[in-house]
Amino acid sequence: MSSLTSAQTATSHQDLDAHLHRYGQQARAASRVLARATTNDKNAALKAIYQAIESGTARILTANQLDMQAGRDRSLEAALLDRLELTPARIDGMLAGLNDVIGLADPVGTITDLSYRPSGIQLGKMRVPLGVVGMIYESRPNVTLEAASLALKSGNAIILRGGSEAFHSNQAIAACISEGLASSGLPAAAVQVIDTADRAAVGLLITMTEFVDVIVPRGGKNLIERISREAKVPVIKHLDGNCHVYVDAEADLAKALPICINAKTHRYGVCNAMETLLVNQSVAAEFLPQAAQAYQEKGVELRGCERTQAILSGINAATEQDWYEEYLAPILAIKIVEDLDAAISHINQYGSHHTDAIVTENYTLSRRFLNEVDSSSVMVNASTRFADGFEYGLGAEIGISTDKIHARGPVGLEGLTSQKWIVLGNGEIRQ
Amino acid sequence: MSSLTSAQTATSHQDLDAHLHRYGQQARAASRVLARATTNDKNAALKAIYQAIESGTARILTANQLDMQAGRDRSLEAALLDRLELTPARIDGMLAGLNDVIGLADPVGTITDLSYRPSGIQLGKMRVPLGVVGMIYESRPNVTLEAASLALKSGNAIILRGGSEAFHSNQAIAACISEGLASSGLPAAAVQVIDTADRAAVGLLITMTEFVDVIVPRGGKNLIERISREAKVPVIKHLDGNCHVYVDAEADLAKALPICINAKTHRYGVCNAMETLLVNQSVAAEFLPQAAQAYQEKGVELRGCERTQAILSGINAATEQDWYEEYLAPILAIKIVEDLDAAISHINQYGSHHTDAIVTENYTLSRRFLNEVDSSSVMVNASTRFADGFEYGLGAEIGISTDKIHARGPVGLEGLTSQKWIVLGNGEIRQ
Repeated sequence: MSSLTSAQTATSHQDLDAHLHRYGQQARAASRVLARATTNDKNAALKAIYQAIESGTARILTANQLDMQAGRDRSLEAALLDRLELTPARIDGMLAGLNDVIGLADPVGTITDLSYRPSGIQLGKMRVPLGVVGMIYESRPNVTLEAASLALKSGNAIILRGGSEAFHSNQAIAACISEGLASSGLPAAAVQVIDTADRAAVGLLITMTEFVDVIVPRGGKNLIERISREAKVPVIKHLDGNCHVYVDAEADLAKALPICINAKTHRYGVCNAMETLLVNQSVAAEFLPQAAQAYQEKGVELRGCERTQAILSGINAATEQDWYEEYLAPILAIKIVEDLDAAISHINQYGSHHTDAIVTENYTLSRRFLNEVDSSSVMVNASTRFADGFEYGLGAEIGISTDKIHARGPVGLEGLTSQKWIVLGNGEIRQ
Repeated sequence: MSSLTSAQTATSHQDLDAHLHRYGQQARAASRVLARATTNDKNAALKAIYQAIESGTARILTANQLDMQAGRDRSLEAALLDRLELTPARIDGMLAGLNDVIGLADPVGTITDLSYRPSGIQLGKMRVPLGVVGMIYESRPNVTLEAASLALKSGNAIILRGGSEAFHSNQAIAACISEGLASSGLPAAAVQVIDTADRAAVGLLITMTEFVDVIVPRGGKNLIERISREAKVPVIKHLDGNCHVYVDAEADLAKALPICINAKTHRYGVCNAMETLLVNQSVAAEFLPQAAQAYQEKGVELRGCERTQAILSGINAATEQDWYEEYLAPILAIKIVEDLDAAISHINQYGSHHTDAIVTENYTLSRRFLNEVDSSSVMVNASTRFADGFEYGLGAEIGISTDKIHARGPVGLEGLTSQKWIVLGNGEIRQ
């Protein structure tokens, strides 16, 4: 009996392997067609998808109700159900996002730096699609359309693997995308949504180096860590956002206060929210009571170092662990630091290299902060909340990278492309 | 006895682990100092290293003789011994290369695209070092200096792991580099050469994601495949160069002939040499006999498809395997193709996405070739041999990437850097 089970498992693994292999082969073939599609071709397909989603709204909402019911039956927590739910307004939002992508400039084919070398050849760089993107994500079904539209616009095929809790919603959105692709003449395999709930599919997708050029995971830290650990395909990943604001001795406190309040309280559950406030010792006694009052009005729990506690009596102590924490909640750690060097050291040691800001009027210190803080976004006199694709003008973003390789920070269309060298000659040969 | 041995192994693994950990920690600390070093600081260190190598030439040559003797004792093959050997002329070559790196523009700190967003923030990108580079290479001890100088110039710390056959040479060069670093005030740990011959060190180096930001392997295909398979740190890798020249129906044969001869025969053992020649059916009867004569004068063995054999009687048949082959030898596969589409399909299917060229006077076909061939370098009317860092004006190259992620094609200083976003504000907050 046990040997029979093991044989069955082997067969089913082989089946799954062959199944994923087909996705990969079809995506690779579609990517060749997409790579030579014109901007007009791609926009026409995106517009056809827009129409299909618009006229398929009822079907998508019905499918989503199946997922919602299954989620309630499985007692998914309220936050997860909220992320899972689609409403007519949310579908309008998805369509508006798709419209934005249609309006974005197409990076593919852009040629830069075309100049002559001493040998006589003219050398430049051409922006080209990566090829096939593998996207692994949880709960939010709107990601299906968002990721597909960014991949298409940048000339990439995409294989999508959503969470099982959003299975019906994702399949319904995928059906609309296929319909749009079919009517536009681009290959249907340009966008494929994996139709098996088998979790082993993820393990296969992230190791198919011959068919997949990059993996973009979106979801909880556990998912992303597991994918990073097991992937053979390069991963554009976003781990965490432990962001800082440093209020310098020469800060204009009239700028510092709104920045610090905005960075912490504009939204709590986002990766670019401030989690630790660093304050120069020379302005702490003046600044911290004002800031604390504003935070307490918003219901933010403060946790301070000893010197902070001496100024803000009654607040909790921050432990060593607090400096590492991404709260994603109305909690703020506060530390008084001696100078810029101490602030930079703290950020580079405890931070997550995501987004960090200084508030200062000092020219030299602002430049040092920009140069020396090792984060994907470094800011002077601005709220960390600006670190996202929309604010940076990328349009939508496929993710925010906390890696240094390839793409760093918000990743839009350009992050889904690469550059190849082009050489224009007139019969030159190497001497 | 067996349990004792196993305990000893465990201890030695722990020791090695701790040893590599120290390299990593020291490199990470040094990388922070290097990241804020000015171009002048870095050039001063490179000049001090130049002096130390120059005055240490005798020591380096003596150390190299130890490696050469050991290599002869181990009956290393002649080609390997040749690559291992250092001579005064080769050291002069290394110094000239170092001088070139000193003369290169420093990419670090370059700020581009600084422009205002609707929110009022000014957004741009700053080029920054990757951090810590891990370099794994075989035989050629000159790579030790070359890689170290490129890493330093681009503000990165580097951990070098050379082949055991070059152990003494690499240590002697490393000693000169340390001497130069010490006299210049940059941290000695900016360049570290792993001093253990234990092969397990490579396995540790390529998985220390907390300390190493990128791995650059240089060596045989086996080494590179193993590293790619086992690495957790991102790898900039060069696998193989199966390069093509396609002679189009509208080729100017007076350009085609020298390009085809140069691409194949200028050097045989290089990755940018042509391995398969594709000829349009309409010019094959005219072009191939001329080309064959020139190749046969150079002693190049030709292997043709059936139609090629019908024109060039007496040459060997090319098998399916030949289309995949990177000969690195005086052998050339020849295939007659129907049209541009067939040529592009062949290249994208059998090639290694390294470097491919078309010879044509046709404007539209040249643009299609540039757009549709999926290789790191695509060329019109020029020899594939131009695809390298020196010809492309990068100065030295740390490697040639056959990947699409991060860096593609020849990788120079810029490939060892990343870009972070910078935001210059005046108190802006997110609405």
